[in-house]
Amino acid sequence: MSYQAPLRDMRFVLHELFDVTAHCETLGQGLDRELIDGVLEEGARYAAEVVAPLNRQGDEQGCTLVDGAVRTPDGFRQAYRQYVDNGWASMTGPGEYGGQGLPQLLACAFHEMLMGASLSFRVYSGLTEGAVLALHRHGSAALKDAYLEKLVSGQWAGTMCLTEPQAGTDLALLRTRAEPQADGSYKVSGSKIFISGGEQDLSENIVHLVLARLPDAPAGVKGISLLLVPKFVANPDGTPGARNALSCGALEHKMGIKGAATCVMNFDGASGWLIGEANQGLACMFTMMNDARFQVGLQGLGIAEAAFQGALRYARERLQSRSLSGPAEPDKPADPIIHHPDVRRMLLTQKTLVEGSRMLAAYCARQLDLEHGQGDARARQAAGRRAALLIPMVKAFFTDMGQEVASLGVQVYGGHGYIREWGMEQLMRDSRITQLYEGTNGIQALDYIRRKLLGDGGAELSALQAEFSELCDAQLGRPALAEQARTVQARLGEWRELSAEVIAACQRDAQEIGATSVDFLQYSAYVLLAGLWLQAAARAQDMLEQGSDEAAFYQAKLHSARFYLRRVLPRASGHREALQGGAGCMMAMPEDSFAF
Amino acid sequence: MSYQAPLRDMRFVLHELFDVTAHCETLGQGLDRELIDGVLEEGARYAAEVVAPLNRQGDEQGCTLVDGAVRTPDGFRQAYRQYVDNGWASMTGPGEYGGQGLPQLLACAFHEMLMGASLSFRVYSGLTEGAVLALHRHGSAALKDAYLEKLVSGQWAGTMCLTEPQAGTDLALLRTRAEPQADGSYKVSGSKIFISGGEQDLSENIVHLVLARLPDAPAGVKGISLLLVPKFVANPDGTPGARNALSCGALEHKMGIKGAATCVMNFDGASGWLIGEANQGLACMFTMMNDARFQVGLQGLGIAEAAFQGALRYARERLQSRSLSGPAEPDKPADPIIHHPDVRRMLLTQKTLVEGSRMLAAYCARQLDLEHGQGDARARQAAGRRAALLIPMVKAFFTDMGQEVASLGVQVYGGHGYIREWGMEQLMRDSRITQLYEGTNGIQALDYIRRKLLGDGGAELSALQAEFSELCDAQLGRPALAEQARTVQARLGEWRELSAEVIAACQRDAQEIGATSVDFLQYSAYVLLAGLWLQAAARAQDMLEQGSDEAAFYQAKLHSARFYLRRVLPRASGHREALQGGAGCMMAMPEDSFAF
Repeated sequence: MSYQAPLRDMRFVLHELFDVTAHCETLGQGLDRELIDGVLEEGARYAAEVVAPLNRQGDEQGCTLVDGAVRTPDGFRQAYRQYVDNGWASMTGPGEYGGQGLPQLLACAFHEMLMGASLSFRVYSGLTEGAVLALHRHGSAALKDAYLEKLVSGQWAGTMCLTEPQAGTDLALLRTRAEPQADGSYKVSGSKIFISGGEQDLSENIVHLVLARLPDAPAGVKGISLLLVPKFVANPDGTPGARNALSCGALEHKMGIKGAATCVMNFDGASGWLIGEANQGLACMFTMMNDARFQVGLQGLGIAEAAFQGALRYARERLQSRSLSGPAEPDKPADPIIHHPDVRRMLLTQKTLVEGSRMLAAYCARQLDLEHGQGDARARQAAGRRAALLIPMVKAFFTDMGQEVASLGVQVYGGHGYIREWGMEQLMRDSRITQLYEGTNGIQALDYIRRKLLGDGGAELSALQAEFSELCDAQLGRPALAEQARTVQARLGEWRELSAEVIAACQRDAQEIGATSVDFLQYSAYVLLAGLWLQAAARAQDMLEQGSDEAAFYQAKLHSARFYLRRVLPRASGHREALQGGAGCMMAMPEDSFAF
Repeated sequence: MSYQAPLRDMRFVLHELFDVTAHCETLGQGLDRELIDGVLEEGARYAAEVVAPLNRQGDEQGCTLVDGAVRTPDGFRQAYRQYVDNGWASMTGPGEYGGQGLPQLLACAFHEMLMGASLSFRVYSGLTEGAVLALHRHGSAALKDAYLEKLVSGQWAGTMCLTEPQAGTDLALLRTRAEPQADGSYKVSGSKIFISGGEQDLSENIVHLVLARLPDAPAGVKGISLLLVPKFVANPDGTPGARNALSCGALEHKMGIKGAATCVMNFDGASGWLIGEANQGLACMFTMMNDARFQVGLQGLGIAEAAFQGALRYARERLQSRSLSGPAEPDKPADPIIHHPDVRRMLLTQKTLVEGSRMLAAYCARQLDLEHGQGDARARQAAGRRAALLIPMVKAFFTDMGQEVASLGVQVYGGHGYIREWGMEQLMRDSRITQLYEGTNGIQALDYIRRKLLGDGGAELSALQAEFSELCDAQLGRPALAEQARTVQARLGEWRELSAEVIAACQRDAQEIGATSVDFLQYSAYVLLAGLWLQAAARAQDMLEQGSDEAAFYQAKLHSARFYLRRVLPRASGHREALQGGAGCMMAMPEDSFAF
């Protein structure tokens, strides 16, 4: 399957909705429009020409483990070398360690391209960026000097080693131990599973960030520390030194992302160094997890875009049956299936979910940039709260959406969608992991309600709702958009009421937190996307009124906005009514009765 | 993954809701309860002990094609032999050709078990039953005598050869030709794709039912004929004779059902015999397709049951985190995840969709039996209309549901759901085909609206709604069920109004047929399941009031009914509002604009 980055829409989102050039200035970075567009175009070329061609073969060939060494699929090494050599790896890294420090608002567009071109390939580099963040924020000067530059450049890769067989969602149960040594280092012992890129042949070293317990650690999550455990201990001159006592014990056999090595990692008294304070590992890891969860959201988005592109191509080529209102292309033996309303329903559902999510990704990326930017502390904290509120939504909604859109892609292809050579079924298999890793989507929804909503009594969510409500007000008086603005305004009002209801219910009964979480997250995301679609429509209307010579593009935005509001947004009603059904009807059933 | 047939629930549906013993009497078959339960138990044993153990290995091993011969996975041959020897193949076949003529109401329970145990294995036998139906109904005496007995016994297998590369949904485009010969036979030439079991090593002969065009045939679907084209032409003594000029050209590489051989079949002037009249092939094929579509619905149901069983087992064993209201099992390191409301939401969604669909399957099977039973012509026609109305719903809703329930199964397992050895991801991959073959689910929805709803101006649907409305009225006065009865009654009223709206919209604009079809089918199914859940609750309430010693079982039914009505049925609102969004917003977008 070919993949072409959706450059026009990315420019629409970055420049026209979020003014990325001004944003860069705010961040103190002098990136002009030409440079930004150049990055996007180069990124698009790399994704389409270097990465995308690897995707299907990576799936067919998979990874192999021989004598402890993992061999990645053919072509991955060369593509990774280009990734490092051309500076893609260092895009967001800190300047003092050789990074380019580009804003997330720009980087997220490139990262989406990578995900769309090949999720398996992207998995190897994606976690390095999170490792850089955690090490940069929490590591000692010595550790940073020894490891950061190579991680930033991508010559060395990073991993996250959290999960153990008995400890997935519940990290309190983890058992990996770290014994302090006389020289200030630790000996790390234990077994980790599901480690993406735990072993590979792409980078010259692999730096594992490992959660473990010190001997005197309190029980539970308050006794977890974060350690840096490199495959090769860094020499003082920055070259990889002694081989550490860790190894890949097995590769998992998975549904998809077969080009990505998912490893069982055994640590047998491996040398490790503490990152941050003892027993504060979870807090350090959260720095990394926030980034990782945003990246996983982009995975859902990237795959969804790829699925939409495939489905659209097929729908325009495949001739089958006549339009319900009579032959649309009588010179052909049958009409292209894009003439059939149900096919259009599928394509437009894909298109509006993808484009809507792209706007939300950019919105969230902008907040992440502002959080780590140069504004005053209050502004940075506000951006941090906004990003924290949105990240579980981005992770869970985008990845559920990615699976749906990939499945719609298969459906548009009919029986051919089920056949491997067409590439659509791989997108479904690959995307399915994104709903599970980095915290299942159920866990994201719990985070959204418990920490983000109940954590401040709904204050941050209210602020978000108020912001969109204001944007909406501005369109109410405009005849071309009034009806749509009213639809969005009504949903925003409903959302506010529902938020208050949910908070009250959760305060009354803790079980309501888990009973309402997934439906409330979904509800919230559909309404938020409606708010963003109204913004897109407003911009399109502006441009049409100004006589833009891209009238067809902006008309398409208006059509899409209308479709989203009329045919996708109604799903919010189902989620609202479902969550209002409450916890009682699910908690009343005795466990033994489930099996009847 | 192990699979155990849900015998208690099957007995609930068959005996307690649909009185299968009385039904058998109506059909003139003296099957008492003991015999029926014996069949179910034997079927359950065969499914669990013989078929289920083949499923994972069938996926890993797949099928191979060597010198035109297909080798099925290890164990399939032995299991198929038992299938034939123990009479499972002949269960529903006509008595005059050695069949047992058991009603669908009983058979559908056994068939569901087969699907749940291994869809790949079931694919080989499933189409034979449809071939028997078509041949029995439309074939000449000579053809029937030569082929039916062996097909009924399962010694020979049947296939359906419809699809060609350019002709999937749109059979008007098919090109396979049938040239009449002096002896009354035909020479069939052409290439068919996606032929399930087109070649295999299980049965001693394979009887292909092939759609083709005669030389003088009118263009389009009115020029399609149905031919019987055997792999080995039957000798007068009933043994397989001369090898026919047809062959398997390739096996497809698929997302799932890898144990099932999906073949490219090449017919090179193969000898064939007309079934039914020339150019009436599509009508003959519809006989087979009705049965096949019902069976595919059962595939969705069977896989969903298997996924629910897996998820429930895991949710009771997996210890992770503490209940939101404090430790539920303090003696364990963490609580089994079944204590968490969001896990319960997933399990109960699975359970109530599966059990609700099982009731609808039985309802539909009963109508199929009555249609072909011994009642008067009017009653038979009425049953036929009812079945015809329901079959697209059974096919599309059950298979969408199967995919959702399989995906929920993966989600309950967390990361382990993505790993092959746990078996959950295979269920997702296997079930995905069911939304595509035997007419995509979009085509089912078109059939539901165009033929079944608009075909009689909504009369049959009204009758169905009235039937459930009456059943509902009977519960309104009962305090224990009044609230639920009101919920269902309100939805039935809404459904009636919505049906009228949909009919009017489609009459105004043909595009509305395709624009409303999928949402209206989904809406209808959710409301119909609500009606059935109310019946289940009523029966459970009866039994509890009578002091049944299975109180826990009936209480669970009441809990499930409540969960379905409060947490699943609300989805109907989303579908209603979406379809009311109309066709305009999807037809207005110019084709070229989709690509922006």
